[in-house]
Amino acid sequence: MAWNTNLRWRLPVICLLLQVALVVLFGVFVRYDLDADPHWIEKKMSGNVSSDLDNEFYYRYPSFQDVHVMIFVGFGFLMTFLQRYGYSAVGFNFLLAAFGIQWALLMQGWFHSFDGRYILLGVENLINADFCVGSVCVAFGAVLGKVSPVQLLIMTLFQVTLFSVNEFILLSLLEVKDAGGSMTIHTFGAYFGLTVTWILYRPNLYQSKDRQSSVYHSDLFAMIGTLFLWMYWPSFNSAVSNHGDAQHRAAINTYCSLAACVLSAVALSSILHKKGKLDMVHIQNATLAGGVAVGTAAEMMLMPYGSLIVGFICGIISTLGFVYLTPFLESRLRIQDTCGIHNLHGIPGIIGGIVGAVTAASANTELYGQEGLAFAFGSSTPSWNASTQGKFQAAGLFVSLAMALVGGIIVGVILKLPFWGQAADENCFEDAIYWEMPKDQKSIVFRSEDPALKASEP
Amino acid sequence: MAWNTNLRWRLPVICLLLQVALVVLFGVFVRYDLDADPHWIEKKMSGNVSSDLDNEFYYRYPSFQDVHVMIFVGFGFLMTFLQRYGYSAVGFNFLLAAFGIQWALLMQGWFHSFDGRYILLGVENLINADFCVGSVCVAFGAVLGKVSPVQLLIMTLFQVTLFSVNEFILLSLLEVKDAGGSMTIHTFGAYFGLTVTWILYRPNLYQSKDRQSSVYHSDLFAMIGTLFLWMYWPSFNSAVSNHGDAQHRAAINTYCSLAACVLSAVALSSILHKKGKLDMVHIQNATLAGGVAVGTAAEMMLMPYGSLIVGFICGIISTLGFVYLTPFLESRLRIQDTCGIHNLHGIPGIIGGIVGAVTAASANTELYGQEGLAFAFGSSTPSWNASTQGKFQAAGLFVSLAMALVGGIIVGVILKLPFWGQAADENCFEDAIYWEMPKDQKSIVFRSEDPALKASEP
Amino acid sequence: MAWNTNLRWRLPVICLLLQVALVVLFGVFVRYDLDADPHWIEKKMSGNVSSDLDNEFYYRYPSFQDVHVMIFVGFGFLMTFLQRYGYSAVGFNFLLAAFGIQWALLMQGWFHSFDGRYILLGVENLINADFCVGSVCVAFGAVLGKVSPVQLLIMTLFQVTLFSVNEFILLSLLEVKDAGGSMTIHTFGAYFGLTVTWILYRPNLYQSKDRQSSVYHSDLFAMIGTLFLWMYWPSFNSAVSNHGDAQHRAAINTYCSLAACVLSAVALSSILHKKGKLDMVHIQNATLAGGVAVGTAAEMMLMPYGSLIVGFICGIISTLGFVYLTPFLESRLRIQDTCGIHNLHGIPGIIGGIVGAVTAASANTELYGQEGLAFAFGSSTPSWNASTQGKFQAAGLFVSLAMALVGGIIVGVILKLPFWGQAADENCFEDAIYWEMPKDQKSIVFRSEDPALKASEP
Repeated sequence: MAWNTNLRWRLPVICLLLQVALVVLFGVFVRYDLDADPHWIEKKMSGNVSSDLDNEFYYRYPSFQDVHVMIFVGFGFLMTFLQRYGYSAVGFNFLLAAFGIQWALLMQGWFHSFDGRYILLGVENLINADFCVGSVCVAFGAVLGKVSPVQLLIMTLFQVTLFSVNEFILLSLLEVKDAGGSMTIHTFGAYFGLTVTWILYRPNLYQSKDRQSSVYHSDLFAMIGTLFLWMYWPSFNSAVSNHGDAQHRAAINTYCSLAACVLSAVALSSILHKKGKLDMVHIQNATLAGGVAVGTAAEMMLMPYGSLIVGFICGIISTLGFVYLTPFLESRLRIQDTCGIHNLHGIPGIIGGIVGAVTAASANTELYGQEGLAFAFGSSTPSWNASTQGKFQAAGLFVSLAMALVGGIIVGVILKLPFWGQAADENCFEDAIYWEMPKDQKSIVFRSEDPALKASEP
Repeated sequence: MAWNTNLRWRLPVICLLLQVALVVLFGVFVRYDLDADPHWIEKKMSGNVSSDLDNEFYYRYPSFQDVHVMIFVGFGFLMTFLQRYGYSAVGFNFLLAAFGIQWALLMQGWFHSFDGRYILLGVENLINADFCVGSVCVAFGAVLGKVSPVQLLIMTLFQVTLFSVNEFILLSLLEVKDAGGSMTIHTFGAYFGLTVTWILYRPNLYQSKDRQSSVYHSDLFAMIGTLFLWMYWPSFNSAVSNHGDAQHRAAINTYCSLAACVLSAVALSSILHKKGKLDMVHIQNATLAGGVAVGTAAEMMLMPYGSLIVGFICGIISTLGFVYLTPFLESRLRIQDTCGIHNLHGIPGIIGGIVGAVTAASANTELYGQEGLAFAFGSSTPSWNASTQGKFQAAGLFVSLAMALVGGIIVGVILKLPFWGQAADENCFEDAIYWEMPKDQKSIVFRSEDPALKASEP
Repeated sequence: MAWNTNLRWRLPVICLLLQVALVVLFGVFVRYDLDADPHWIEKKMSGNVSSDLDNEFYYRYPSFQDVHVMIFVGFGFLMTFLQRYGYSAVGFNFLLAAFGIQWALLMQGWFHSFDGRYILLGVENLINADFCVGSVCVAFGAVLGKVSPVQLLIMTLFQVTLFSVNEFILLSLLEVKDAGGSMTIHTFGAYFGLTVTWILYRPNLYQSKDRQSSVYHSDLFAMIGTLFLWMYWPSFNSAVSNHGDAQHRAAINTYCSLAACVLSAVALSSILHKKGKLDMVHIQNATLAGGVAVGTAAEMMLMPYGSLIVGFICGIISTLGFVYLTPFLESRLRIQDTCGIHNLHGIPGIIGGIVGAVTAASANTELYGQEGLAFAFGSSTPSWNASTQGKFQAAGLFVSLAMALVGGIIVGVILKLPFWGQAADENCFEDAIYWEMPKDQKSIVFRSEDPALKASEP
């Protein structure tokens, strides 16, 4: 099957339309939050603010920048591991994230920062928009190499919308805690992406298998992504936690979980190879599972040893997933998961949701103190009790899964339409379809290895 | 024409001389600011400081580090896109910036932090020195591949000096606002660099055209630069803004502008290619134009939608510039602009100056509040009014352009002298001239492709 | 000599054992510090805390993240310069650091954060754990390419232990100041690593010399490491300094020292090449020596010009070391120092210790003020005087050297045992021994260049 992959009008039109729509909606709906408005000085002078530093900016901005790096460099470079898909990995991730954050500012703004007339923007909105786009980056991992940028923009449009609805249900209706987004970001993003790639199943993808692997330097580029994700994950999980001890604790727990995860991922990678050799795929991905899995509970009293246990187990499960589950999903369930997001975000996300539910259900005044419990969980409400919180947490996990599956099916069907510029099965994982290539790739690798592709170009 | 490119004495002598001079000048002139001096504790105990956090360090240091990354990794790697000029791009940028920040601490210190006897250093000086060097990095983009490190050090020496004079005229005499440096950094840096490269015109540069393009992995290295610039630009534009809402607002506006810019740059890149393919040059560069163009107005009440509009327009103009203007400049005006800085810093810088002037001229008490306006613009001075501020802003733009052109001509003429170790026209864009090369490059690419170069070596 | 390099059981078993032991020890010993505990809110409500921002988290977290990047990306990528050892450089560094930080939290915790029953964790512990692991990363540089991951884990286990003992002696018994770790991190790490590599001397290492060099892109990857180390070093040296002016001053001094160091390293690199060409090895390494050498004195009144002088001298000495000392160490003293850590951490570390001793000995109330001196050095103790402090500083340097030598011999002897999976002399600096390789490396470089290696595989 040969689709037309020339994007000359389709991509520009959709980009410009979306951006113009965003400008109009921002014009109608978006203003600055008081902490970012010149009238803040009046609040300050009225004596409610002890110092300039009490501006929310100073609590959140360093974490925001770390999260920002994770979304653009972390996810972008993590996906450059394919030998001939580096431009697309980093470039399309850049495009979809740049669109997604704007749309997320609106969608999340209507749900959470709307004062009746305007959405009021502050640094916390920027972080949440990055979070929301994080779930799209996760889903991108599943379809990597098999979709056009037009499809990615459409997927982003829908996924951000669904994410915001799901997040609203969890955080506002169910009053679930999910600071690092094990459920809202990772579980939702992963199962959404897996459903989409299931609908988009390509029976002849084996024709592109030659390119679905790394070369030496592409693996090193991917390690840039891995390491920035790994290093900044403590900021990710603590970025929107309550000021003070909660943010502090979330960072410590995530640090611990990720460290443990590295050792168990390395151990399993070696044990599963017949000569005991390590596999870069595991080092690039399974080492991060610990960050996903403490997303919900990081700000709670998970305890440092609890974090180590979670990280330890997830490193094992994630590596096992890469070796056994991903091939199984592809051959039996027709789910082609390019980056193995099921192992990095799917299962660890579910584990994270469960760990969060159990940890929340174990909350008590001995651990948190009277005031501490009230601050962390709003336990001063008479109706609150820990086991109910735990049940709602669990419910949140199921809602996220359900939203992901239903949403993924709908979006998958839309993306299956034949006019979005997607590549033929034999031309997947190939930058040259959508990018002007430098000479070295055109003349050497491309022409000699892949004559089929040449022919399919318009 | 074959110049002697052996730097054995020239480069060491100039490096050592400059550094010894800096040591002496620092010894005579530079001390610590009160916030970095052990006597700060006395200020604290006298009750004027409510908390240790009221040290300026905590307001500015995270932003400083982000700016630091932009200068060294951002600009350095952005210029590694050339296939055989990666060492020089990142290495010479490192050299000139390391020298430039020291010289800028002195020059800017004399103008802005001199207490009559000493220049007093604090974290804000470090940021401003990085900013000043940012303008040299911009200019480096124009002459990339065509000048020797000796020439770069000389250019840096002069450009930092001129920058500081220009900045003093703008900020202190004209009382212009330019927190993110659309005028002082980008416009000045770009037109200075373009003038220098115009003076240094190389009629036979076509002999090096083979190397004036990328290879696959060099483009990925360049994306590291692009993304770190893009991600940290909100810190750049907010780093020296007033504490509180101004810093907060500058970050939000820059975030918005840059996001919009990505979509319009991608749209134009595709539309301008006959098969709709994307060009890495545009993705690497034009996506950043939005950050340049809100440099002046980011801390003002530009509004989120205003930022989107500015970013949107600059993404379009910048991409058009790469496709149509850069070839025109080279063929008709004899301006060889290696990195296309005219499209990324030149035009967007001018737009940024104009946007700043218009936004300042629109300032009023309704938008800012009485106190807010006084704090943002010093409007409590009886003589102040918004339209005057706008006119002075516009004047600042012209002053920057004039300084750049005049300064660029003088420096260009100095750099044209034949004994600075510059390469011959057929040896441009080539690391091997100034660097000891690893075996793979020497034996494979270098010898076979470029026999001319071999001969020209001493 | 052909050892068995199959790690299938050895590596997994040691990873899992260590991690399980860590989980148990954390369970028994580790809890949260008050600033990371939900009871913090009670402290806040009792009126001792003026603002949420007075949580230690906000003073230290941005610096922590910078240090974290230095350990994982900085050291990891710095060592990717070898043409076929990138996976191992970045991957083994990741592994040993992830293990090391956990073990360091315990070891340092027992010495410094033990309340009689529990080790109480806060952000400062995370920074100190990263610091401790920094010294292991330094030592890794000496043995790079010649040891197995099993050996690295064992080395980390012992080195972290010894580091913590040494640190306790210096900081708690001798009451030495060493905020940036010139002595505890760099001197100790370097001489420990050099002693280990001396014990592990490989007489036939010349058989692997072909691979002990860079290729073009591996040098660019290494520059990522260099630049992140260079840029974030001000955070490293200031991360655990006293709040306020000390942190501020440490950042300024480090910034100055590093800038000067770049110029002198470039100058020497050029002067020492017969055609005046620059050597990437010097740019990657010697430019960092200035950061090492102000590690102890950065928070003291070193003065900006003092920092420049230290950086200037260290850039020269370090580059000279790479050209003359490293070959001498290898040929005469049988010390094979892969990364030249003696030039980057060894000598500059000693210089840093001496500079610190001299600076401390020069402390007086005129420079610091009465209160400032008390705060910086605890001079309110009647027995304190500056020259004694200087002597203790010098003593600390000797203790660090002694611990490094004795510890290095013991650990070296343990690592010399033949069953740790180390590679044969002809297979050093080769990823393929321990990693599943992508096709491009297997078929092209590997098979053709290095038939010996093929044969030695099990």
